[in-house]
Amino acid sequence: MKILILNGPNLNMLGKREPEIYGKNTLSNLQDLIENYCKDLKYDVEFYQSNHEGDLIDKIQSSAVDGIVFNAGAYTHTSVALRDAISSVKTPVIEVHISNVHSREEFRHKSLISPVCLGVICGFGFNSYLLAINGLHLFLSKDVK
Amino acid sequence: MKILILNGPNLNMLGKREPEIYGKNTLSNLQDLIENYCKDLKYDVEFYQSNHEGDLIDKIQSSAVDGIVFNAGAYTHTSVALRDAISSVKTPVIEVHISNVHSREEFRHKSLISPVCLGVICGFGFNSYLLAINGLHLFLSKDVK
Amino acid sequence: MKILILNGPNLNMLGKREPEIYGKNTLSNLQDLIENYCKDLKYDVEFYQSNHEGDLIDKIQSSAVDGIVFNAGAYTHTSVALRDAISSVKTPVIEVHISNVHSREEFRHKSLISPVCLGVICGFGFNSYLLAINGLHLFLSKDVK
Amino acid sequence: MKILILNGPNLNMLGKREPEIYGKNTLSNLQDLIENYCKDLKYDVEFYQSNHEGDLIDKIQSSAVDGIVFNAGAYTHTSVALRDAISSVKTPVIEVHISNVHSREEFRHKSLISPVCLGVICGFGFNSYLLAINGLHLFLSKDVK
Amino acid sequence: MKILILNGPNLNMLGKREPEIYGKNTLSNLQDLIENYCKDLKYDVEFYQSNHEGDLIDKIQSSAVDGIVFNAGAYTHTSVALRDAISSVKTPVIEVHISNVHSREEFRHKSLISPVCLGVICGFGFNSYLLAINGLHLFLSKDVK
Amino acid sequence: MKILILNGPNLNMLGKREPEIYGKNTLSNLQDLIENYCKDLKYDVEFYQSNHEGDLIDKIQSSAVDGIVFNAGAYTHTSVALRDAISSVKTPVIEVHISNVHSREEFRHKSLISPVCLGVICGFGFNSYLLAINGLHLFLSKDVK
Amino acid sequence: MKILILNGPNLNMLGKREPEIYGKNTLSNLQDLIENYCKDLKYDVEFYQSNHEGDLIDKIQSSAVDGIVFNAGAYTHTSVALRDAISSVKTPVIEVHISNVHSREEFRHKSLISPVCLGVICGFGFNSYLLAINGLHLFLSKDVK
Amino acid sequence: MKILILNGPNLNMLGKREPEIYGKNTLSNLQDLIENYCKDLKYDVEFYQSNHEGDLIDKIQSSAVDGIVFNAGAYTHTSVALRDAISSVKTPVIEVHISNVHSREEFRHKSLISPVCLGVICGFGFNSYLLAINGLHLFLSKDVK
Amino acid sequence: MKILILNGPNLNMLGKREPEIYGKNTLSNLQDLIENYCKDLKYDVEFYQSNHEGDLIDKIQSSAVDGIVFNAGAYTHTSVALRDAISSVKTPVIEVHISNVHSREEFRHKSLISPVCLGVICGFGFNSYLLAINGLHLFLSKDVK
Amino acid sequence: MKILILNGPNLNMLGKREPEIYGKNTLSNLQDLIENYCKDLKYDVEFYQSNHEGDLIDKIQSSAVDGIVFNAGAYTHTSVALRDAISSVKTPVIEVHISNVHSREEFRHKSLISPVCLGVICGFGFNSYLLAINGLHLFLSKDVK
Amino acid sequence: MKILILNGPNLNMLGKREPEIYGKNTLSNLQDLIENYCKDLKYDVEFYQSNHEGDLIDKIQSSAVDGIVFNAGAYTHTSVALRDAISSVKTPVIEVHISNVHSREEFRHKSLISPVCLGVICGFGFNSYLLAINGLHLFLSKDVK
Amino acid sequence: MKILILNGPNLNMLGKREPEIYGKNTLSNLQDLIENYCKDLKYDVEFYQSNHEGDLIDKIQSSAVDGIVFNAGAYTHTSVALRDAISSVKTPVIEVHISNVHSREEFRHKSLISPVCLGVICGFGFNSYLLAINGLHLFLSKDVK
Repeated sequence: MKILILNGPNLNMLGKREPEIYGKNTLSNLQDLIENYCKDLKYDVEFYQSNHEGDLIDKIQSSAVDGIVFNAGAYTHTSVALRDAISSVKTPVIEVHISNVHSREEFRHKSLISPVCLGVICGFGFNSYLLAINGLHLFLSKDVK
Repeated sequence: MKILILNGPNLNMLGKREPEIYGKNTLSNLQDLIENYCKDLKYDVEFYQSNHEGDLIDKIQSSAVDGIVFNAGAYTHTSVALRDAISSVKTPVIEVHISNVHSREEFRHKSLISPVCLGVICGFGFNSYLLAINGLHLFLSKDVK
Repeated sequence: MKILILNGPNLNMLGKREPEIYGKNTLSNLQDLIENYCKDLKYDVEFYQSNHEGDLIDKIQSSAVDGIVFNAGAYTHTSVALRDAISSVKTPVIEVHISNVHSREEFRHKSLISPVCLGVICGFGFNSYLLAINGLHLFLSKDVK
Repeated sequence: MKILILNGPNLNMLGKREPEIYGKNTLSNLQDLIENYCKDLKYDVEFYQSNHEGDLIDKIQSSAVDGIVFNAGAYTHTSVALRDAISSVKTPVIEVHISNVHSREEFRHKSLISPVCLGVICGFGFNSYLLAINGLHLFLSKDVK
Repeated sequence: MKILILNGPNLNMLGKREPEIYGKNTLSNLQDLIENYCKDLKYDVEFYQSNHEGDLIDKIQSSAVDGIVFNAGAYTHTSVALRDAISSVKTPVIEVHISNVHSREEFRHKSLISPVCLGVICGFGFNSYLLAINGLHLFLSKDVK
Repeated sequence: MKILILNGPNLNMLGKREPEIYGKNTLSNLQDLIENYCKDLKYDVEFYQSNHEGDLIDKIQSSAVDGIVFNAGAYTHTSVALRDAISSVKTPVIEVHISNVHSREEFRHKSLISPVCLGVICGFGFNSYLLAINGLHLFLSKDVK
Repeated sequence: MKILILNGPNLNMLGKREPEIYGKNTLSNLQDLIENYCKDLKYDVEFYQSNHEGDLIDKIQSSAVDGIVFNAGAYTHTSVALRDAISSVKTPVIEVHISNVHSREEFRHKSLISPVCLGVICGFGFNSYLLAINGLHLFLSKDVK
Repeated sequence: MKILILNGPNLNMLGKREPEIYGKNTLSNLQDLIENYCKDLKYDVEFYQSNHEGDLIDKIQSSAVDGIVFNAGAYTHTSVALRDAISSVKTPVIEVHISNVHSREEFRHKSLISPVCLGVICGFGFNSYLLAINGLHLFLSKDVK
Repeated sequence: MKILILNGPNLNMLGKREPEIYGKNTLSNLQDLIENYCKDLKYDVEFYQSNHEGDLIDKIQSSAVDGIVFNAGAYTHTSVALRDAISSVKTPVIEVHISNVHSREEFRHKSLISPVCLGVICGFGFNSYLLAINGLHLFLSKDVK
Repeated sequence: MKILILNGPNLNMLGKREPEIYGKNTLSNLQDLIENYCKDLKYDVEFYQSNHEGDLIDKIQSSAVDGIVFNAGAYTHTSVALRDAISSVKTPVIEVHISNVHSREEFRHKSLISPVCLGVICGFGFNSYLLAINGLHLFLSKDVK
Repeated sequence: MKILILNGPNLNMLGKREPEIYGKNTLSNLQDLIENYCKDLKYDVEFYQSNHEGDLIDKIQSSAVDGIVFNAGAYTHTSVALRDAISSVKTPVIEVHISNVHSREEFRHKSLISPVCLGVICGFGFNSYLLAINGLHLFLSKDVK
Repeated sequence: MKILILNGPNLNMLGKREPEIYGKNTLSNLQDLIENYCKDLKYDVEFYQSNHEGDLIDKIQSSAVDGIVFNAGAYTHTSVALRDAISSVKTPVIEVHISNVHSREEFRHKSLISPVCLGVICGFGFNSYLLAINGLHLFLSKDVK
């Protein structure tokens, strides 16, 4: 089994950007955390970040994985094209956010990609990713009730 | 450690109500699943369901637990009073939904309680509850990054 | 055949509340009228009123009847939970109102439960209930064209 | 006593148009059904259909009847002129719809004529007309509570 | 003369809930304050709190008092049923709020019950109740200009 | 202690303008009522009315008082400049209205100044002013709970 | 010089329809009033009324007159087609209303045809027509300042 | 008989301001035109212009005239206070505009004062005032049909 | 094969109405252009224009053709009845406009009939009709990819 | 003559993405179809697809062609930048869509680029492109009526 | 060359009003700063502040200057009359704000006067005025690119 | 000191695109103008333009400068991701526009990046950039009042 961890715009600034919201750890710390977690599950992981909407679309279309954990950052709220990209592949996608986007600005409350994802998880810090991988794992093992 | 699993209106109909959305398992199956899961974590669980908004408010205010996993059902979208009840206690609350509410009717897209919860999880079937307990566990063990 | 006549909040005030809108007859007069009407149809009737949203949900879920005539009163315009309760049972439900709600305040024009009911009748005074029982009767006798 | 059964645009297509919504019976079947029903009540009936908004206005203004049962079809949602025509006569008018318009497209939920009608009935198939005649009969016999 | 002091959802949490908004005093302190104040006016007081919308409706309908001071809490913004309950009795009702609701979240700016109350008072802490009793007293003594 | 009673546009027409809403007493009657009331409290009063938005702003800025009771009349609903004037001084301001503005036209339901006032009182006739002075008095004597 | 006085739906009911709004005089009285007035101005008059939107469009397009006084009745608020018809001819059109439409229901406040008319007059009873003819006369005699 | 011709903000710029909309004639030309017209009717005229909202309110309240012709300029669209001033006097008021405001910017389409005026006239250039005086004259002579 | 070319209100004014938008050619020129074009395709053509909404509905319902090219003019934006008429027949309908409606007034941007048409073409002048016929031809010859 | 066929995000997924909407043919099939069609017209074709908004902007700015047929995919609904790019060149652009976007989700009904395109065509499958090329050809040959 | 520095309501409170937003310097400090700056440019300056909308309109109309730098304060968001005053003169006007109005309350984001000003500058503290004078200077010296 | 001049989509078309709005000078002319201006201030300048949202984000994150002058072009109105990029760095950013965006289309009035910028300048042609550099210079030299 192989999964893609996909991160959108400005997530490369983790640890530097608004630490009161996103914490002090960096994207590289996140990658380590996830790789360790997946080792236990015996999952292969691809970890990718881009600030470019088109790159993220290309990645979703071309990746040959069993599931995607996707933090689309600010594109969550503006990109119909990423929504269409998710619809255009059969791979299950889990939407994640580090912070609880619903307790922030109004324009962060509406996600254009939620309706085409399998599930949504937000507000658990970096643990949002681990919970998403866990949920994906249960789904892929058909362990859904 | 003790947690409360709180279920709102019509969740007593699980297995009977619209099984194409909510699956065929019942609330009692859900309770078994959760109790087994918590046994492994050595967590005490209280499991409660009510169709009455006031009962749910009473429960949130009076329960002496370390965390709450809350599926507010339809009250998610209409109850400012439940939002205030969550704000009025210090216990961390995780909002869960069995289905992906964002791919259903427009009026199910807006949650009044999300902004005052710690995190939100939806779309994983009954597993949404297990992921929430897991997230709560990581939070309570200060294992947050 | 058995039907449930279900009345929501403030309908216990009939005859006292705003008689220029609701008339001078009481809930008890309504009950007599309906019981007489059903005697002719050889229908059993259960007659129930509550001011509590949760009680109304409980009633809808638990009643073992062939049809429900439901005047949800003010909950008509605010309760997603009652809507879900109606969806969660297979029993046909007819929405009724004593007054013509469309010639009153703007917020009474939108019903959250109409889309999940079989039909809607309003504006005929207490006769709205009799017409609803009649419509239900034609439906249950498969006498629909 | 004499009543007018008035049908608006596209109702001449009954039986042909979207039968999954409107059923397989035709306007002529509807006319038979109503004429039989009125014979029992000893009511005279005039039955009229037009696709022209102006014709419907002319008819409402000029008909010398004791009551009108009116299915305004799509004009229900767009015609202020029909609303004014109903206001300009003293005859009581009952609004009817064959289908439950509230479970269809958003733009069919708002009726411009409801506020000036005596009552509204929808969702009972052709029986909506019979219930309306019945309601009108009770009203005309002053048998209202 | 007898008045009812009616408190809605979460007001039993006073002193515990968000003290930066509601202060440190409890509901029981409020009750003492009011009972002392009414003793001077030689008014009987009934003091009641409930988290249940239906209970509040029952109370409004059944209480035999000369006036009601009502803090509807979160139901202020969502309950058409409480509005109808107030309309259904002849007792004058004064709407009160401890905090200035207009300087808080957008959804707390609109009250569904204001239009059917005699007057509205907010922003004076517990004193809002005393001012309301005072206003009610002036009204009941016909001392209105 | 000194307070300013400030009245906005058209309040000089009291007693003449729409007496079914504002009563038959005049602005001069109001002034007498307030001056008597304040004599008992040993408060100095300045009483001022103007139809000019700019004059009202000037007055708020230049008055050296301990509190202001302000009926902004129609400017309540349109003036951001009065809101800024209130924000620009440290004096506590109480918003009052003679009638219950919430049971009148839609455009009178939204106040631009409420969020920057200490409290709001409406619907008690001229007594609204007395209650406001009372509330201000309790606030200034630090008698707030 | 020749002018067309054009009246839309339900104006044939003048004198019968809601006399508290439109007065007791009939369309025929209006015609007399106008013909007398035009005789003095030595204007030919064509007087036409129809309940049919299409007829009104045909009339506007085909009439060979120097000016049109148009009371579009309820079509004022719903007809883009009449607006286009007015735009498609060079004849100056004056919009008139008997009542002051701005003090009636919200949906009568917006006119779709005003932007393409020369001027608008409302609220003067039948005199609205005479003022419109007068205004048209001043315009046609180039007596505009 | 005496009438007041009242002009609001920027109308002193007539002839200078945007002549493609308002023409080349000045406010003084308008005054001459009106005074001549009224001489024929044997009406006294007071002619007043101000850029100050408060001045216009003062004028409406204090003028002892039989009717007012009012061009409120930009205050038409923003002043609830002028609306209240008109309501507070019994004098009939006619709203006039030189240009057809409905064919200009969106924010000029809504008038706050129309609902409390007797009638409205726009789009006839300076003649709008003459038609208004004429309409007022017919109204005052009880020559209304 | 036979097709119907259907034109709505004011299209009989082509060549006369706003030539800067619609060009100088007339409806009769359009008819010639289309008939020549169809001769080559060996299609029979019926060409029909009406200003009456009801006539257009009658025509859609009664025409026995293989396809319809429909320029609904202003009814495009207001007629639910034409939408229902299109839904009530099985004939494929192509919506056309001469001008690019999207670069004109806001109210011309929303079409009520687009969702029930096969396709939409606008902005090509009279050629919009030829392209529509071409598209219909490809569709009818099953030459769709 | 040379034209550019420009395709936006996710159109490289044609044949794979949601075939019930877009059909089973691929982008490469589309390219063949268009190249054959243009060969007959003796047009040179450049065919280009990108998921990157910036690439599409670059292409529009730099291409030296006589016309552009543009399927902007999801960017149709979100990109002001593409709109500006089209405005910044003089080349005529035709907007095309494979499916009838107006019978899909609400957010696909509004196009930001339509107002700056020459024309719009949707709903004909791949034929939408051929019709667009045809329309462009007629325009470029000045064969517009 | 002569310029007018015009300040609207509450700007006389600078240094006292909300210093965390507007800083500690006063209007008089601002005047000094500007006069020094203009001395270097050899510009005459008139400096004027008023809380009265009408005064500001009078000033704009009557001042004989080459340019205006205008901080309209709260009237920015509510005054159509000031917008019209700016339109009625030919003098170029620069809109300035001390704070960045876009990071404050929602109702401060929309300016009614921006569309009729030459340019807008905000967020630079008192320097906003100097930059505006500079921009005006470049404009007046025809040094615009 | 070093500053970055950042230009978004379509600004490479300056001089070619809509010269009536943007003037005839090119991006290269702008660069010369700015470099000369900065030479006097002894500032290093980096000048960068891209049509790619992702490139602009990368540039903001990676540039090691003391301030940024940013013309985001059309992304101003649609990009939450650029807003987040600005928030994620500590560098002060000035938003500039060549034209006065507020006198153009409605959708250009709302900027998503204004709330996170230091200040905003628009409407001065190329001089907008020079004023911004000037403002930045005053800010960086702590010369803010």
